[in-house]
Amino acid sequence: MHTLGEITEFIDAKLVGDPSIKINGIASLQHSNSNQLSYIVNDKYKKDLISSQAGVVILNESLLADCPTNALVVNDVYLAFAKISHYFKKQITHQAGIHSSAKINNAKINTTCVIGENVTIGNDSVISPNAIIEDNVTIGDNAYLYPNVTILQGCSIGKNAVISSGAVIGSEGFGNARDDQGHWHTIAHLGNVVIGDNVTIGANTTIDRGTLEDTEIHNGVRIDNLVHIAHNVIVGKDTAIAANTGIAGSTTLGKRCMIGGMVGIVGHLNICDDVIVNAKSTIDKNIKNPGTYTGIMPLMNHKQWQNVGLWLVKLDKIVEYLNIKLKNLKGN
Amino acid sequence: MHTLGEITEFIDAKLVGDPSIKINGIASLQHSNSNQLSYIVNDKYKKDLISSQAGVVILNESLLADCPTNALVVNDVYLAFAKISHYFKKQITHQAGIHSSAKINNAKINTTCVIGENVTIGNDSVISPNAIIEDNVTIGDNAYLYPNVTILQGCSIGKNAVISSGAVIGSEGFGNARDDQGHWHTIAHLGNVVIGDNVTIGANTTIDRGTLEDTEIHNGVRIDNLVHIAHNVIVGKDTAIAANTGIAGSTTLGKRCMIGGMVGIVGHLNICDDVIVNAKSTIDKNIKNPGTYTGIMPLMNHKQWQNVGLWLVKLDKIVEYLNIKLKNLKGN
Amino acid sequence: MHTLGEITEFIDAKLVGDPSIKINGIASLQHSNSNQLSYIVNDKYKKDLISSQAGVVILNESLLADCPTNALVVNDVYLAFAKISHYFKKQITHQAGIHSSAKINNAKINTTCVIGENVTIGNDSVISPNAIIEDNVTIGDNAYLYPNVTILQGCSIGKNAVISSGAVIGSEGFGNARDDQGHWHTIAHLGNVVIGDNVTIGANTTIDRGTLEDTEIHNGVRIDNLVHIAHNVIVGKDTAIAANTGIAGSTTLGKRCMIGGMVGIVGHLNICDDVIVNAKSTIDKNIKNPGTYTGIMPLMNHKQWQNVGLWLVKLDKIVEYLNIKLKNLKGN
Repeated sequence: MHTLGEITEFIDAKLVGDPSIKINGIASLQHSNSNQLSYIVNDKYKKDLISSQAGVVILNESLLADCPTNALVVNDVYLAFAKISHYFKKQITHQAGIHSSAKINNAKINTTCVIGENVTIGNDSVISPNAIIEDNVTIGDNAYLYPNVTILQGCSIGKNAVISSGAVIGSEGFGNARDDQGHWHTIAHLGNVVIGDNVTIGANTTIDRGTLEDTEIHNGVRIDNLVHIAHNVIVGKDTAIAANTGIAGSTTLGKRCMIGGMVGIVGHLNICDDVIVNAKSTIDKNIKNPGTYTGIMPLMNHKQWQNVGLWLVKLDKIVEYLNIKLKNLKGN
Repeated sequence: MHTLGEITEFIDAKLVGDPSIKINGIASLQHSNSNQLSYIVNDKYKKDLISSQAGVVILNESLLADCPTNALVVNDVYLAFAKISHYFKKQITHQAGIHSSAKINNAKINTTCVIGENVTIGNDSVISPNAIIEDNVTIGDNAYLYPNVTILQGCSIGKNAVISSGAVIGSEGFGNARDDQGHWHTIAHLGNVVIGDNVTIGANTTIDRGTLEDTEIHNGVRIDNLVHIAHNVIVGKDTAIAANTGIAGSTTLGKRCMIGGMVGIVGHLNICDDVIVNAKSTIDKNIKNPGTYTGIMPLMNHKQWQNVGLWLVKLDKIVEYLNIKLKNLKGN
Repeated sequence: MHTLGEITEFIDAKLVGDPSIKINGIASLQHSNSNQLSYIVNDKYKKDLISSQAGVVILNESLLADCPTNALVVNDVYLAFAKISHYFKKQITHQAGIHSSAKINNAKINTTCVIGENVTIGNDSVISPNAIIEDNVTIGDNAYLYPNVTILQGCSIGKNAVISSGAVIGSEGFGNARDDQGHWHTIAHLGNVVIGDNVTIGANTTIDRGTLEDTEIHNGVRIDNLVHIAHNVIVGKDTAIAANTGIAGSTTLGKRCMIGGMVGIVGHLNICDDVIVNAKSTIDKNIKNPGTYTGIMPLMNHKQWQNVGLWLVKLDKIVEYLNIKLKNLKGN
């Protein structure tokens, strides 16, 4: 709990409003309440600003007139948000062993594990050696955590989960604001990872927590080894993701998708239900229709590849030289 | 050990045969004996069915007439196999410290390690802090395990092995059967990982155990960091695999291959001996001739890439427009 | 400390010089002193040989005349170097708990951690459960190590560092010499990893130590999850690297670069300052100009991809058939 006065000073803002107001968290313009701080980085969210219930909003001078509540005026909103986000991150104090407040029901916990404050573990669950489970984590019934798993604060995992060795659930998202000298300022990620029932997570896979909202892995999902799921990704029900795949921030995958190995999916995309993506493809736009998609360079003898590559980077010039117009070509 | 009657009930099959027969494991049609269960998912294996020595085979009604032994008739064979596989998976009970049955010879084991039942560790081997070595693992002489390594049940590692920090050997394969509601059912992987002599495994690399047979890493292999080796892969002698590479299930790599970094190799392929694959390539077909192979998109200035990409996805249309036939083009 | 006589015998060389000289390390031709061994694998470094201050140089017979110091003459210099490198690698003896020689200042160390000899940890740093910190590691003030981190011998980490769970700092580089029977001989990596101030390292990321010199991560760098940084890579100030990316050995990245997710960068390259590389691209040549670069195959419906791919691998033949010359095409 911090006063607006303290926050104003910390981010070096100009406060338009009441410095004595108490703020206990951060949320989006749409989801914040009068005890929460929000921020607006882009004029296109002006409508959300106008109707926001936030206790205070970090904004540029230009949006001040549209702010219905207390305002923290700064030059670089995203940077100010990055700085203040750390104010609201719960600091963990680790101990060894099982914290006295943990409810471990009828679960088997290896004595080498570290189980934090207010952790709940369901019946018949097995927590194998060297698992670290931080404060406020909830794990459902009949879950199986292999050795060397790390579950960071506040995450929740449904029943019948299988979490493989070396998996890290709840690592910080890769969100950083850059100042005018080119230095990065880490954003403290305040969301959690919420994993549904009947989910399997592969070895050494990492799932980052969300920035403000949660990263979500829905019921029945299968995730293979060495997969990276970034902050605020949503993986729909019964979707399967093969090894070495990476999904960048805020992308949503539909239900029953099958994502091949080493696929890269860029951020802020929507992939609809029932999409199959072949191994190694890159997804850099929304997919609106179910079906099978591919985007890889065919494998060639190295000499052949060199010959093809020479012309490939000139393909637009070749087309221009041949005087072909896009409109001459049949659609799709 | 389970009776056919129990198994029949568990997978909701129609049993054609003797419910009192005892089954103690699962094997392929070709390698199973009269105490083992097998299954057939595809008519093309009918010949193996006819000559199988299995105690019982899960199959579709249509293959019943060809079954020389007891039969479990189901609609979805693969799904039934997935369900019953868990019956034959050994449940591990972890303790802290070194199990009294472990034979650790003249090895140095850090006191923070967990060493399971019937583990054997060779002379002069070093097991660094926080290593977890589950039941029935065998490690040869003069092996060096860095801190935080996980070796799961039943795997074996030859002499002079180096296993780097965070490596996971024997994670479950990514094999799942889908039911008619689109839900995944995990297959319990009953094979192990068998690693030969003089092998080096990189940091945070994962090697999955086989489904029924073993995943094999032959003598002298070098595997770099963050590599994924899926179930039932075979990596031939003296092959080197660079970082971030992924090899999908049941693929066999020959001897003395050199696989560059971040290469993706799809499943069920055969790569012959002495193949060099340049970094970042995708291998999606068998390679039958030694040599150097490449399949990457050349790097361009982003604007140039946009211009090329526009036409690249129309290349077939361009060719059609130009009225070129494949037969007009010289071979290779 | 080994005598030249011992070394000569161990690598089966012909010594031209004094067998009683004592050698205590290995360095490059340019940076070695009279107590160090060096080696030359390629005639193009002859100038460095001629001016080298090394106590002894491993070389081929053909370069003997140019050697200003003691010489170890062998057929395969790189292989001899690989073998002798292990002589100079410090062997670690792990204990449990915190070594009595460690200076941990005002840091919080979880009791489950292993802290080696001569480790220094700065004020206000937090070392979370199950961290393994080997001998001679230095960590600055106000660092935060998440659970399950491994920092191997001799590495140093600046102030305000954040090292995420499962990260491995200081794993051995993937350097191997091949003998004439095709067997690999591991090179012991004698350099360290040196990480500057204000650096963040993601979950399950691996950073290999250098061969002779150090791998360097400069101030203000941000590295995401599951990234692989190979031996002797230098990452310039304030550069950000997204998840699943791999950087091969001896590549140097400039300042303020932004490398997208799952980018592969091959070894021995120079990437200048202020380069942006889009996700999934491959970098296989030097980049000399700031700007944005891309190299990915566009995603297509699978049928379309098959049609395009058919012609793509014939692009050189198409161009030849159309009788187009490169000189006909406008530049770049």
